[in-house]
Amino acid sequence: MLKFELMNKLLLFLITCIVFPFVANAQTTDSAMLRKIVNETLQNSGAYEHLRYITKEIGHRLSGSSGAAKAVEATTRMLKEAGADTVYWQPCYVPQWVRGSKESGEVVSNGVKRKLKLLALGNSVGSGAKGVAAEVITVKSLDEVRMLGGKVKGKIVFYNVKMDPTNIRTFRSYGQSGAARRDGPSLAAKYGAIGVMVRSLASNADDHPHTGTTQYNDSFPKIPAVAISTNDADWIAAESKKGRITGSFITHSQMLEDVLSYNVIGELRGSKTPNRYITVGGHLDSWDVGEGAHDDGAGCVQSIEVLRSFKANNIRPNNTIRAVMFMNEENGLRGGKTYLDSAIAKKETHLFAIESDAGGFTPRGIGISTNDSAVIKRFFSWQPLFKEYLADNFDLAGGGADISPLRSINTITGSLSVDSQRYFDIHHAETDVFENVSKRELDLGAGVMAAFLFLVDKYGLK
Amino acid sequence: MLKFELMNKLLLFLITCIVFPFVANAQTTDSAMLRKIVNETLQNSGAYEHLRYITKEIGHRLSGSSGAAKAVEATTRMLKEAGADTVYWQPCYVPQWVRGSKESGEVVSNGVKRKLKLLALGNSVGSGAKGVAAEVITVKSLDEVRMLGGKVKGKIVFYNVKMDPTNIRTFRSYGQSGAARRDGPSLAAKYGAIGVMVRSLASNADDHPHTGTTQYNDSFPKIPAVAISTNDADWIAAESKKGRITGSFITHSQMLEDVLSYNVIGELRGSKTPNRYITVGGHLDSWDVGEGAHDDGAGCVQSIEVLRSFKANNIRPNNTIRAVMFMNEENGLRGGKTYLDSAIAKKETHLFAIESDAGGFTPRGIGISTNDSAVIKRFFSWQPLFKEYLADNFDLAGGGADISPLRSINTITGSLSVDSQRYFDIHHAETDVFENVSKRELDLGAGVMAAFLFLVDKYGLK
Repeated sequence: MLKFELMNKLLLFLITCIVFPFVANAQTTDSAMLRKIVNETLQNSGAYEHLRYITKEIGHRLSGSSGAAKAVEATTRMLKEAGADTVYWQPCYVPQWVRGSKESGEVVSNGVKRKLKLLALGNSVGSGAKGVAAEVITVKSLDEVRMLGGKVKGKIVFYNVKMDPTNIRTFRSYGQSGAARRDGPSLAAKYGAIGVMVRSLASNADDHPHTGTTQYNDSFPKIPAVAISTNDADWIAAESKKGRITGSFITHSQMLEDVLSYNVIGELRGSKTPNRYITVGGHLDSWDVGEGAHDDGAGCVQSIEVLRSFKANNIRPNNTIRAVMFMNEENGLRGGKTYLDSAIAKKETHLFAIESDAGGFTPRGIGISTNDSAVIKRFFSWQPLFKEYLADNFDLAGGGADISPLRSINTITGSLSVDSQRYFDIHHAETDVFENVSKRELDLGAGVMAAFLFLVDKYGLK
Repeated sequence: MLKFELMNKLLLFLITCIVFPFVANAQTTDSAMLRKIVNETLQNSGAYEHLRYITKEIGHRLSGSSGAAKAVEATTRMLKEAGADTVYWQPCYVPQWVRGSKESGEVVSNGVKRKLKLLALGNSVGSGAKGVAAEVITVKSLDEVRMLGGKVKGKIVFYNVKMDPTNIRTFRSYGQSGAARRDGPSLAAKYGAIGVMVRSLASNADDHPHTGTTQYNDSFPKIPAVAISTNDADWIAAESKKGRITGSFITHSQMLEDVLSYNVIGELRGSKTPNRYITVGGHLDSWDVGEGAHDDGAGCVQSIEVLRSFKANNIRPNNTIRAVMFMNEENGLRGGKTYLDSAIAKKETHLFAIESDAGGFTPRGIGISTNDSAVIKRFFSWQPLFKEYLADNFDLAGGGADISPLRSINTITGSLSVDSQRYFDIHHAETDVFENVSKRELDLGAGVMAAFLFLVDKYGLK
């Protein structure tokens, strides 16, 4: 018994003397390296000036637009300047939805006319030259339309679905309220409605409508659909309690033929296993209002900065690191799908992919999607290293639209988690402009991603 | 031995069955109450509209100014409307520093003239009608002036002390770089300099100078001192490497006689121990540029919101809760000192005081200042309750200028910790305006403070 205890103590002593210093030393070394990486970006980042160019010199970049084409050229140059070993384009055909000439609309309540601030929903059909005009039926949910059924026939349905302000993670509210924009037009059409207005998916009360995609169900007529500002929505909701409201709007949007576009890819070639890939990306396309600054110019320039920071710190990655500017996240995801198709065709092994597509705000942590307990264990073992960057909010809810197709080839996907309180004030609206991005917040996000990818590259995730 | 083990197990069983459910239940009940408190503010807060009034209807509010007087009146009304049992004023005499007519300045390098964007430092003397004109000596630290000694005689000293971008907690950089603004003018005067320019304490590169107090040492001549924009500072620094720079500036500031002003106090009277106080505050005065929106209109309207939220949730506090709008934080701290004097004179017991004076940004946690291990234990026992608000960054570095005098009567002081990445872009500058405050960020901060104060009131801190 005593001998056994003695052996135990000896073992403990050995572990303490021999193993622990290595572990502790590895953490210390990593900690110092992470600090170097983050500092490099906080001191010398190119992200903010790149974003200035993409937003102020180019502007918005809807798939198929001249802005998108210019952004392909511009980020190619930026990736080369950042020191990528290779920069190339991955062709993909993208939908070309165009808004057309200026939309307009109004509502009338008890003789009082109110001009609406509105935007056609992405992918929606135009109203025709005469527009749509009818009684406006205000509803708060898809279910309410199902209950009304034929009563919406010939009417304009107005979905007044507010974002729940009590979710601290505002993406939850966006997800909860998003159904009306996505499925609302076709559901209303199913029961004979002739047009749809949706309350903008916005967290604040203002005069800026927020666009975004709608998805038609081919079983029903495609009716025109617009997003109206939250101030307009509140006005209609208040007036509709008093009596009958009529409304009208004209939109000129149409879906043209698909056109050729590109993902832009910059690589730092792996020194040990160049055929194994780690992807960091954002999407290059944006909506056709504002400047696509947070959504997702930020993610693109942060990804370029990750490459620049690796080069500036003389990090030669084991695996090939790819910064990918995905095309067509907003209304088709063709870039993301093409990236997967290419990976399969070339039999590439993708270890990990991370996307920054929640705005260039203060980073709060990293999220990954996996059920693998070994991966989860390793992931959380790194969490303490991010405490000094106030970005140690690690969780198992990561990913991004563009990289989600990669899951089908067992790629672990992740995302940069950022402070989300301001995002839905400006998301998909004309207020998503460069001036609303903070350089420090943007840079800190890039630095945290670079630091995380350094660990993934060095240790792998399993 | 066996009997002892059995007793131990029995004890453990009893603890598990009897004590744990109470503890767990208390946590569950508290958790639900905290959610109710935070939701009330996220749904019905008056903070943002109050801030709109203070910034847009009143504007900046330097101590002794008409803006400050209007803000005393306005917040009195707001506190009454929030449901305070009592609202009253606490008189205090405050310094009345005035900027006077428009300042101007320029530098010349190699025949190239550059107009400067500048602001006289708070409390600084004016330059006299002729201004100061001399060679400009660029230094990077107070020590450099000490080394130069008599070489700065008759010159204008330009302190080009950058804020270190690598501190994630930007207040550290502010503290590190702040010495030049505070002590730089008198040190330069000690060696015969006739004027001082300081690089604005700003984290970004732009054209907006940031003012703030300087502190003259009465042993040396009081020389005029200005803050220049970071863009101007970078220009001078670059040019000064090429050759001799000359410069001049005119300022018209002066310190007038002290004038009567007030702290504004609203109370929710304690139901059990009304003679024990918990303070939540911000400061009502601001600099005389911009609108004092983040600094510190935000802290004032959040403190009012804490009272409103307690009333709206029918919380009858055990102790008296005071929302205090302190006067003269920026250039004298007379309000904070008066608050202490009054507490001593009235023999008040102050359990705890918290200040929000780091901007109305996303809350990250709570900091308190104490060495008391019992308090520290209790404080951290609450930390998990704040995880769902992403505000569980609890630390032992809390406090605020206005409440710091209370420490002399053993009051534990604390602060709302917020995301600090954007603060020094706008701090003390004309860009500290309402438009740069996010309603959600402001409200979430108020909600987190209210939630924390609910716990302090219910359990005490010891």
